[in-house]
Formats: sequence, structure tokens, C-alpha cells
Amino acid sequence: MSTSRVLRGGIVGGGNGAFIGAVHRIAAELDGEARVIAGALSSNPERARESAEQWHLQRGYDSFDAMAKAEAARDDGIDFVIVATPNNMHLPVTRAFLDAGIHVICDKPMASSLAEAQEMADLVNRNGKLFALTHTYTGYPMVREAKAMVAAGELGEIRKVMVEYNQDWLMEPLEKAGNKQAEWRTDPARAGISCCVGDIGTHAHNLVEYITGQTVTQICADLSAFVDGRPLDDDANMLIRLSGGGKGTLVCSQIACGEENALNIRVYGSKGGVEWHQQEPNTLLFKPAGAPWQRRRTAASAYSERAGASTRTPSGHPEGYLEAFANVYRDFLADVQRVVAGDAPQRLYPGADEGVRGLSFVEASVRSSAAGANWVEL
Amino acid sequence: MSTSRVLRGGIVGGGNGAFIGAVHRIAAELDGEARVIAGALSSNPERARESAEQWHLQRGYDSFDAMAKAEAARDDGIDFVIVATPNNMHLPVTRAFLDAGIHVICDKPMASSLAEAQEMADLVNRNGKLFALTHTYTGYPMVREAKAMVAAGELGEIRKVMVEYNQDWLMEPLEKAGNKQAEWRTDPARAGISCCVGDIGTHAHNLVEYITGQTVTQICADLSAFVDGRPLDDDANMLIRLSGGGKGTLVCSQIACGEENALNIRVYGSKGGVEWHQQEPNTLLFKPAGAPWQRRRTAASAYSERAGASTRTPSGHPEGYLEAFANVYRDFLADVQRVVAGDAPQRLYPGADEGVRGLSFVEASVRSSAAGANWVEL
Amino acid sequence: MSTSRVLRGGIVGGGNGAFIGAVHRIAAELDGEARVIAGALSSNPERARESAEQWHLQRGYDSFDAMAKAEAARDDGIDFVIVATPNNMHLPVTRAFLDAGIHVICDKPMASSLAEAQEMADLVNRNGKLFALTHTYTGYPMVREAKAMVAAGELGEIRKVMVEYNQDWLMEPLEKAGNKQAEWRTDPARAGISCCVGDIGTHAHNLVEYITGQTVTQICADLSAFVDGRPLDDDANMLIRLSGGGKGTLVCSQIACGEENALNIRVYGSKGGVEWHQQEPNTLLFKPAGAPWQRRRTAASAYSERAGASTRTPSGHPEGYLEAFANVYRDFLADVQRVVAGDAPQRLYPGADEGVRGLSFVEASVRSSAAGANWVEL
Amino acid sequence: MSTSRVLRGGIVGGGNGAFIGAVHRIAAELDGEARVIAGALSSNPERARESAEQWHLQRGYDSFDAMAKAEAARDDGIDFVIVATPNNMHLPVTRAFLDAGIHVICDKPMASSLAEAQEMADLVNRNGKLFALTHTYTGYPMVREAKAMVAAGELGEIRKVMVEYNQDWLMEPLEKAGNKQAEWRTDPARAGISCCVGDIGTHAHNLVEYITGQTVTQICADLSAFVDGRPLDDDANMLIRLSGGGKGTLVCSQIACGEENALNIRVYGSKGGVEWHQQEPNTLLFKPAGAPWQRRRTAASAYSERAGASTRTPSGHPEGYLEAFANVYRDFLADVQRVVAGDAPQRLYPGADEGVRGLSFVEASVRSSAAGANWVEL
Repeated sequence: MSTSRVLRGGIVGGGNGAFIGAVHRIAAELDGEARVIAGALSSNPERARESAEQWHLQRGYDSFDAMAKAEAARDDGIDFVIVATPNNMHLPVTRAFLDAGIHVICDKPMASSLAEAQEMADLVNRNGKLFALTHTYTGYPMVREAKAMVAAGELGEIRKVMVEYNQDWLMEPLEKAGNKQAEWRTDPARAGISCCVGDIGTHAHNLVEYITGQTVTQICADLSAFVDGRPLDDDANMLIRLSGGGKGTLVCSQIACGEENALNIRVYGSKGGVEWHQQEPNTLLFKPAGAPWQRRRTAASAYSERAGASTRTPSGHPEGYLEAFANVYRDFLADVQRVVAGDAPQRLYPGADEGVRGLSFVEASVRSSAAGANWVEL
Repeated sequence: MSTSRVLRGGIVGGGNGAFIGAVHRIAAELDGEARVIAGALSSNPERARESAEQWHLQRGYDSFDAMAKAEAARDDGIDFVIVATPNNMHLPVTRAFLDAGIHVICDKPMASSLAEAQEMADLVNRNGKLFALTHTYTGYPMVREAKAMVAAGELGEIRKVMVEYNQDWLMEPLEKAGNKQAEWRTDPARAGISCCVGDIGTHAHNLVEYITGQTVTQICADLSAFVDGRPLDDDANMLIRLSGGGKGTLVCSQIACGEENALNIRVYGSKGGVEWHQQEPNTLLFKPAGAPWQRRRTAASAYSERAGASTRTPSGHPEGYLEAFANVYRDFLADVQRVVAGDAPQRLYPGADEGVRGLSFVEASVRSSAAGANWVEL
Repeated sequence: MSTSRVLRGGIVGGGNGAFIGAVHRIAAELDGEARVIAGALSSNPERARESAEQWHLQRGYDSFDAMAKAEAARDDGIDFVIVATPNNMHLPVTRAFLDAGIHVICDKPMASSLAEAQEMADLVNRNGKLFALTHTYTGYPMVREAKAMVAAGELGEIRKVMVEYNQDWLMEPLEKAGNKQAEWRTDPARAGISCCVGDIGTHAHNLVEYITGQTVTQICADLSAFVDGRPLDDDANMLIRLSGGGKGTLVCSQIACGEENALNIRVYGSKGGVEWHQQEPNTLLFKPAGAPWQRRRTAASAYSERAGASTRTPSGHPEGYLEAFANVYRDFLADVQRVVAGDAPQRLYPGADEGVRGLSFVEASVRSSAAGANWVEL
Repeated sequence: MSTSRVLRGGIVGGGNGAFIGAVHRIAAELDGEARVIAGALSSNPERARESAEQWHLQRGYDSFDAMAKAEAARDDGIDFVIVATPNNMHLPVTRAFLDAGIHVICDKPMASSLAEAQEMADLVNRNGKLFALTHTYTGYPMVREAKAMVAAGELGEIRKVMVEYNQDWLMEPLEKAGNKQAEWRTDPARAGISCCVGDIGTHAHNLVEYITGQTVTQICADLSAFVDGRPLDDDANMLIRLSGGGKGTLVCSQIACGEENALNIRVYGSKGGVEWHQQEPNTLLFKPAGAPWQRRRTAASAYSERAGASTRTPSGHPEGYLEAFANVYRDFLADVQRVVAGDAPQRLYPGADEGVRGLSFVEASVRSSAAGANWVEL
């Protein structure tokens, strides 16, 4: 909580019916430090207007271009914009707002191709404005605790990583049954070269790099489309190697029957291990060598400063996905306040580098699989 | 999401440092249907001003009386007020705002004594304005699912209930070490006749009645103060009997070493059972007679309309305490909108009746224990 | 493993179809230190013969009296006898074998009434032979670890105990559908004054006293028969008080829909707590004050000598009910070997004292409930 | 339970100090259908004698050759022999007893090389006597339930398998600290071409094939030796492909800090999924498409005939590793009885085929890894 003014936010995309738009708004506003007041919520003008009304926005726009220009010209214009469009629009929208001098917080993956992501990173690096990528899972207190533990050497040298992100929502051909989400995600024209790896494999990849503080340097990826006639992957099994010498597996699936949103990670080092499950996110299992497992808990027994600063409720009052999302926003908004106040930003959130690495991972996994599931460098 | 205007809320109490004030604000604003814009955040004028600034309130007041009068007089006055003061102030604050024609949503327990609670209920019943009591745990989707299952007869006749609410934060004499929360909760002058039962036993009691749709009619309560010199209970073990013929146990403790906020309930009927744990709230175990246990899940497999209407994220994206709190607000704010629009309220949230029953439960438990832990009627 | 000779065991009761007979045989023979070679497996001569053949016994008898006399007269007669009859036969069988100079290991509860149990204890105390009562659950390594932790002061002063033993096998009137087990257990003429408390409540009571090293001194018991027309209890909720000042709840049920054999215990002290679940018996949760929970594990991280001496497999190879049963036998057989060798026994297993306390508990719970669920002394 | 005579067993290896010898004896004798009466427990004559005495064997031998000949010559000679030696002795011991007309039950892996395994399979196939391989984990009731569910089509077409077998006992260089087990397992001269994959990866491989009823046809294996100077693998990550078109991962490790004996498997099909954990073996999670997860349980809700026939205790009385081992013996001994009675054996246990496939898997994984972790055929 600070005494500085409430920041003004805008949003592009995410209108009526898109789950992720509402999540961005809630996350941005949760701590009372920002309000989303302007938006171009849809490329369809009527839907954009309707959504703006429903969201009680002060200023609705028909196009993101018009919005960027108009907001930049106002004394009370927005401080930052949320990019919640389909992936192929991330680059043009980001460019428009950065050019207009407005900070950007963008949904992941950063772009629909590696080339686009690199172009976007160049843009961000040239432009002085802030850029955040909402890799939500880095916002969970116990993920931050795990990262802090690795950084502090509590696990020793990292030897083994097992990460998995399994869902089942595409186990039937929903794209042929009128499901809009399934339609675009399985359509190469709109989703790019990957469905499952691009959508959720990227989260698993990011989580490995975030917690270990290392990069994935090589992968061997076996991608599949189990549902008949699907042109993009709905499942992947990968071997991975890390920059520090560790090895492991990365699994993602959208056809794993019975799984909801099962992002799980285990990291084993020479001195200890950790285990975390996104669906029960307030517990981190710590496995010190030669001693009983410990159950570290949000608020109760998360010992790192970062984890401690990422909670809003006392111990035993569970926090979830929205709070994790809001933690990414909290760091981003604190940086916006710093810049507003003339101070240097701290950049404690994923940005353009993570975005490029994510797309590089997607590109490499498709390349590996196409070559018969052989090893490729990232 | 509706297209009606954003409601204006005020808050009394809950300022700087009080966890519950921030929780109320987040819960009230989470869905974008209300903004907390006015407040009398502390009885200390300076602290009230500071807190109002930190919260970015449009209008800060030094006293709740002044606030009630001033807001009632404005065209853009608040639609509702949040009462987040210590218990002994619930009655005067509620009276002031109801008299001023402003809806009230009040923290639990409703008052510091049964007599006061009854007076407050009379007041609410005479006055036409809305009154909600924030029994948070009734806001969890899977608690609502459990209630719906009982109501639909899926459990058959209720035979057995085991409810428990265990914490450990008072296992040492923190009240002698400068902990403000511990000081007032263990002080009869401020907390009334009970510490543990009043604070958390009431939640357990409310949860039993909410899920079963029955009332607790008799209890046999063995209250203890395990920490030396503590004048109020920090632990209680109770036998309970329900209006429908079921029996069970109700346990609450603030000295249960290692427990954070362990509110757990099991209900057994003649055809099935359910089990729910607040610390992992998105799972409801269903135990049908003669068949494997089922794991019902928020968003994925909660089948009742009420549970379905109480989620904000897709399956596997965990929701927690703040979302449950916001679900109570969602129902309350929808009623405020209905009244603003001239429609009849639906009252889908705990109110004055639940408040009186809660204080009746506290009074009976203390009475039972004082008589040697004998049976008393509620 | 020792180099002394293999002990010779006999069994009375437990023949064809009775689950518990086979369990006794397996447990007695598991470590290769004893063989069950003689038996009077049924009061029905034909069934006794058939069962003896099926069990490959060397010597089958028609009556326990004949067996006691004949075995006592042989040079290679049995060293000990297992009493696995219905409760009302425990006293005469035990008497016959003790009188014949043969050690006895007897199923629980020790007798069908408190008076009978006291008579049996007198008998045991007068007679010099060994007597063990198979309170199986004391054989689990992690139960022994818990006891050792309490004894070592790791939990501090015991403040709170929650024990429960829930099943559902009597939730329908099986006794009217031809189920033999249900028939005798719900028949006062054969089962005595209690069904549920006598059968499984006694295990819960014994577990509390075993782990805490204290006695239950007072109880307030609310017994029910939820199934229509059942003359004995099928469910009980109790408040308990311990000799050391701790308090708690003891719950047992045979109508708790969906529960198999859910014996669970939580003990909270001034410095730590423990939690154990019989259905996942190789884990003991330790909850030290102000630190994360620890997961102690059979073989891997059970630190007491007693727990260490109670395992047969390396860590992670789960041990279960039969091994726990065999651990009680292991201690009993070691004592038999000691006595054979002329050494003093160590009596590291429940005996006549525990048996009397168990029946005293049953009698008190029925007395309390009959008086309106008031407090009674044990 | 049958009325046929108690079978006579012998054992080679497994003497004093070797955990697995005692496990074989317990498993063989658990149901009272066999007794281990003869043995050549060690290649060291003195240790062989000592062990035979400790085990109370009727006949101890100094060499397996002498034992095979002597037992074959007796009227009351052994019916079967247990081979519990180091892997390199499996072939000569098996040959000696098969040649002597004695049935063989042998520890896994079947041999120390693929060539040896094939020779042994030829031997078994030419000889008419029974041969069983103790892949223990196939003895768990819920593993059998899973296999039955797949066979009955409850999972539909198998799409994805995730299997893992993680331990940590070799995470330090115990082989340099005098640990005998670690010494031979990490010594190519005694252990063959693999440590971790040969020892536990084979179990994971066998479990996949057992449950799915398919064969692993291709693997891509990344083997590591994380402990400095260790000549054989202590960790492996593999991609696998199944004969039916499914894909997945197989992970095994002996350096996964904090893991005891964590054999876990998840199988996902087009209609349902199953999940099983060896450390809590009495639960099988069933994940039917579009419905809540079910918790199937040993004895309580295992619906297949095979699972039902594999339990000894009522529901909620946990069974573990020894009972699973005994289930493999139960099927083998029933076959021995059948052969004794002149009936045809049913061979419901792993045999020479499974042995050859296991060694083929080890050989392929080493070959794959040596080639840079490329795909190889099995």
C-alpha cells in the first residue's frame, strides 16, 4: 500500500466472453493501486462498446490505434495498457502503445512466432517504457520461495527436473463442435506452429527457468496430435538439459484425461529437493537430504522475502490463481509508480527476454519433433 | 457482470494494520461492481486520515456518525457500508447507517453479546435496508455444492457431523508480549464472554447449519484456557445435536500446535457423505454408499447452480479465501442493485438470523462449560 | 532372527471363514519364529476338523479343553495359544490354557464384560504365564514413534487429543439380512452391552493411552443406534479428559458412510503435535511449534529405537496391517523365548491391565450415555 | 486355502544380511501353503551354515549344486527353489535346479546380460518345469485392477503413459564408503552394463507393459552418472513409444533427493485415466472422462476378479509390499500344486518372456544413451 495516486490502466482485447480479460482486470485492481478505465475490448465495434459498458469503463474505443493516440494526448491518460488480444496482435498493439509512451503489460506467449518475438524484444529494448509478460505462475508465493531456495543454495547443484502441465480439455475434437477457443488454438493460421506446447508448454518451460535460475539449452521433443485430423500438437513428451548440467523431462498435454490444469514441478539437487503443485499452490514440499520432508506454506512458513511479500492473507487462508496474477501486477505497478516518481524500475517480473526464450522453446520443440524427435539446441 | 452503475461503498474500521479491512475492500471490489470510496477507518482521527490516504479514499471521516450523516445527505453518497470494527461497535455503527438509510454488511460475530445481537436483529427487521453478515466460508463454491447436495437428498438423512476449526496462533501468551490482536481477543472487556468459540467456533457452527440446513439444538461444551492466566477460552470440545436427529462433534482451538486455519467438516448421511477442508477448498469429497469416493472440484465438477455461479476461473485454476469472501459480496451487491432498481432482494447470504444464532451458540457453550460441561439447549 | 528353536503355537477359534483367525496365524508365523501346529478351530466338530485340514495343522481338536490337556501332556506340546473366539469365550479358554501352563495371546476386547475382564486379570496376575492382548494398532512403527516422541518430551505437555475410528459396514441392517458378523455384534446376548464402542471404540481408547502414556479419566459419551431396531450402539461421540490435564474428543462409528477403517489420531502438546492415519500407516506428521510440518516415515525417518525395530522392509516399501499385527507377536514371542530360556520377560505389549481398562471404558461409555450423556469417571 | 499338502521350498542366496532373502521367505510362506526348509544361503560355507541355523532350515548346503542333486534324490525333496543370488548367478543356479526337475522362482532382473537372459529363456522353454520372475509390483491388487480396467476397455485407447521410479539412496558415493550394496551395483564387473536402469528402471518398464498389455517398442534414453567417478548410470530420463501407438516418459533415478521408493504410474486413454503410487498402494485413482475422479480401494472397491483374489484383509486394513510379493508367490505355488496334481499350470505371473524383455530394455537404454540419447528399437 502506498500513498501515491491510483494508476490508470487501459486494456486491449479481453472483452465479453474472454476469460483472460476479466482476470487481467481483477489482477490489476486487486490491491487498489490501479483502475482499468479505458479499453478497446474487441475488434468488433459493437462488441467493444457493449463490453466497455459492462466493465463500467470511462472511455471505450473502437480500435487500439485510436486508443493509443487519444490516451497519449490526455493529461489524465492511462499510465499503462494491458494487451489481452490473440497472440498475432501482441506485436502491433505493443508497438502502438510503446510508441505513444505508454507502459505495456502483455499476455503470454509474447508473439505468434519467434521472429515476431525477437522484433518485439528489439522494440522494447529500444523504447524506454516498461514491458511485462504475464507468466502468472511466477506470481505464486511458493514458486518464489522455491526460486529463493535454489538461489540460496539450499538444494545444492541442480541435477534433475521433472515438470509437467497436463490438461484434458482438447481430448475430444471440440474444434469441430463449435468451441471458439478450440478452433483458434488448433488452427495454424491463428495459433502458429504449435497448440499445446505454445499454450501451456511455455509455462512449464518458464517455470523451470524461473525456479532454477538456469536456461534450458537442449531438448528432444516428441509431439503428437492424438485427436484425428488435428493439424497441431495436443501432447508432448520432452527430454531437457539445463545450462548447469541438470537433466530432466518436460511433459505437456491437452488430452490427459481427467486433468484440469495440472502444472507440477519437482527439482532435485545435490542437497535437497522441492515439489510444487499449482492446483494446491500454498504448499511447497522441501526434501532435505537425510531428513524428513518439510511442508512449507504460504504465509506460515515461506522464509524468503519475495514469498513473504507476495501474500495478502494470514496463514491457512488459501490464496489462488487470481492472487498469483495480481502479484505479477503488483511488481509491475510498483515499477510504474517508480517511473512516475522518476526512480529506476526494479523489473521483478518476466519481460521481453523471457518472451523470446519462450518462443525459442516452441520453435525448437516443433523442429525437434519434425526431425524425428532428435536433440536440438535452443 | 451487469450494465448498472458501479455501487459506492463506505467502510467503518479496518484501517491501517487490520487484516480484515483490506480483505473487505478487495472482496467488495473484486468483480468491478462496487468501489469503496468513503471511510472512517479508525477511531483515532490521525490514523483514520492516514489510512484513508493510503486507501486512496475520496472521502475520509473522523467518526462513523459524521460519515453516516454526511453520506446520507449527498446525491452521490454511499450505497452501502462495511462494518469492520471490533465486535462491541457493530451495534452502534449498524444503527447509525441503517437509520441513515444505508445498507449494511457487517463482520461476524454480529455483536459482543446475545442481548446485543437480538437488539441488532430487531433493528434490522424494523428497518427496511439490507443487512449481510460476512460468514466467509459460506462463499466457497464447494461449500455451496455440499449444501445443495444435502438439500437435494444426495446424502439421505443426516446422521453424523464432525466439524473442527483449529489454529495455533494463541498457543503462547502473546497477549503479554504486545500482540494487539491477542490482547483484545483474550480480554473479556473487549471480546465478551469467549475468545476461541466466539472468534472461530461461530464459523464452525454456522458451517454446520449452512450445509445441513438444520439447526444445532443442543450442545455439551468443554471449554479450556490452556495458556496460564488467560481469562477466556482458547480451546473447546463439544458434542452437538441437530434438529433433524443427527449428532456429532464440534471442536475449535487456538492452541492446536501446527494448525494454521484448519476448518474441516465431514457430514455423514444414510445415503452418502461429504468432506471439505478449507485449506484446500476447491475439492469436495463425496462418499456415496457402496461406491468409490468421488472428488468433486470447483469449476470442473461442481454440479449445483449455486456452486457454478460462484467461480471466476476455469477448472484447475485455484480460487481461495478472497474469492469466497467476494462471493458473499457478490450476492449482497446484487441485492443492493435490485433494491436500487426497485426490485425485491433475494437475500442469498447470512443475515441477522444467523447472527443471533451465532451469539446464542457462544452463550450456550459458555453456559454449558460453566455448569461442568453439561447439555444445554440453544 | 534368533538361533533358538521355532516355537509351537496353537489356536482356539478363528476357523473357516473368520477373517481374524488367518490374521493371527500369519502374524504369528511371519518372522519364522513360530508355527501354528495345533488347533480347536471351531465349536462345531466337523467344521473344526475341516479347518484343521485346510490349515495343514498337525493336531486338530474338537474342544479347547481337550486341547489344553493334551498339549500340556506332550513333550512337543505347544508353547503358546492364540485365543480367537467370540468375546464371551475368552475367559474360559484363557483359564484352561493358563491352568495347563501354556502362555496365552488373546484377541481384544479382553472379555464381554468389565467383571469378566477383572476376573481374567486376577487369573493372569496369579498365574505366572505370559498374557498378551492383540491391540494391533500399537504394532505400527509410526504409532510407536509417536509414543516415543511424547515420552521424550518432543510434544511438551499434552493439551488436546482428537481420535476417531469410523467405519460404515453397519450402516444398513445387515443383521436382518443374514450377515453372521453383524448378527452377533448387534446382539446383546453375544456382544455384551455395546456394539460399536466395544468393537472399535476400544481401539481408539487404547491408542490414546498408548501414545500419550496417560489414562482417560473421564468421559461424556453420546451413543446412538441410527439403524432402526438395533438394540446396541452403532455410533458414539465422546468428550474425554486425560490424567495429565489434556482434553479431547473420541469418535467411533459403524454408520459413517464411505469410511472403511478410518482410525485417525491427532495429539497436540505445548511444543508440538503429531497426526497419524491407520489407512496410510507409514507416515507420521510431526508439527513442531513455529516450524514446518515434518513427514516422518517408517524405515526412512522414524528415529526411535522401538519404531526402528518394528520394520521388515527398506524405506518406501509399505508395511501394513499384517506387519503391525506381527510386531505385537514379535514382542510376545521374544518373551516366550526368554521364558523358555529362563530369562525375565519384557512385556512390551498390551496385557491384562490394558484389557481391564478397555472394558472399563466400554462400561463407562454405556453408563454415561444412559444417564443422558453426562460425565462419568473411569 | 487348499487341503493339498504344504509345499517344500528351498532357497539359494539371500542369506544373513541380504534384505531380499527374508522377503522371499516371508512371501513364500505367508499363506501357509509352503515352507522353506532347505537352502544354500551363501557361497561362503560358514556363513551358509550360520544363516541356515538362524532361519531354522531343516537342511543347509554349502553349494547350490550339491543342493540340487541331493534334493532331487530325496522322496521329501523340495518342490521349488527360490533364486535370490546376485544377477550373474541366476543362470547357473536356474540351470542346476531345472535340470534336477525342480521348479524355479527367480529374482529380477533375470540375468546380468541380454544374451544370458535369452539363454535362460531357451533353457526354461526346453525344460518343462515352472519358472517365475518376481516382478513384485505386479502383485499389488490395485495394479491388477488397473490392468483389468485397461483390458476391459475402461480407459479406451491408451494415449499417454508417465512412469517414474525414483530413489535417493545412491545420491552420495556410498560405494566408496564401504556400502556393499552400493559397491556391487555400481561395479560393471558385477552389475553388468547398468546400475539404475537395471535395478529399478526394469520395474518401471515391466509395470508399463503389465498394465497396458502392450510392449514398449522404442525408447530414447538419456542416462547420467551424477556422482563423480561412478562408472554406471544413477539416473535416467527416457521417452517411450508403445506398440499400440501411445507415447510417454519413463524416469528412474537413485539420486532424486528425498525419494524413498517412489514408483508411480499414470496412464491416460481416450476414455479414462488411472494413477497409482507404490508408496500408498491401496488406492487407485480412476479418472473417467467428463466425471469426477474416483478413488478405488483394495478390498473396498476393486472390481476385477484378479484384484479381489489378491487381498487378505478387509477394506481399510492396509496391505503392503510383502503381501504384493506373496501374491506373486500365491499364483506360482498354485501352479506348483496344479503340476503336482497333474493339472495344467495357469502361469499368472511374470516368466522368462518378461525377463528377456527386461534385459532387452536395459540393453536398449544403454545403447540409446551411448549414441547421444537417440531413438532405438527394442
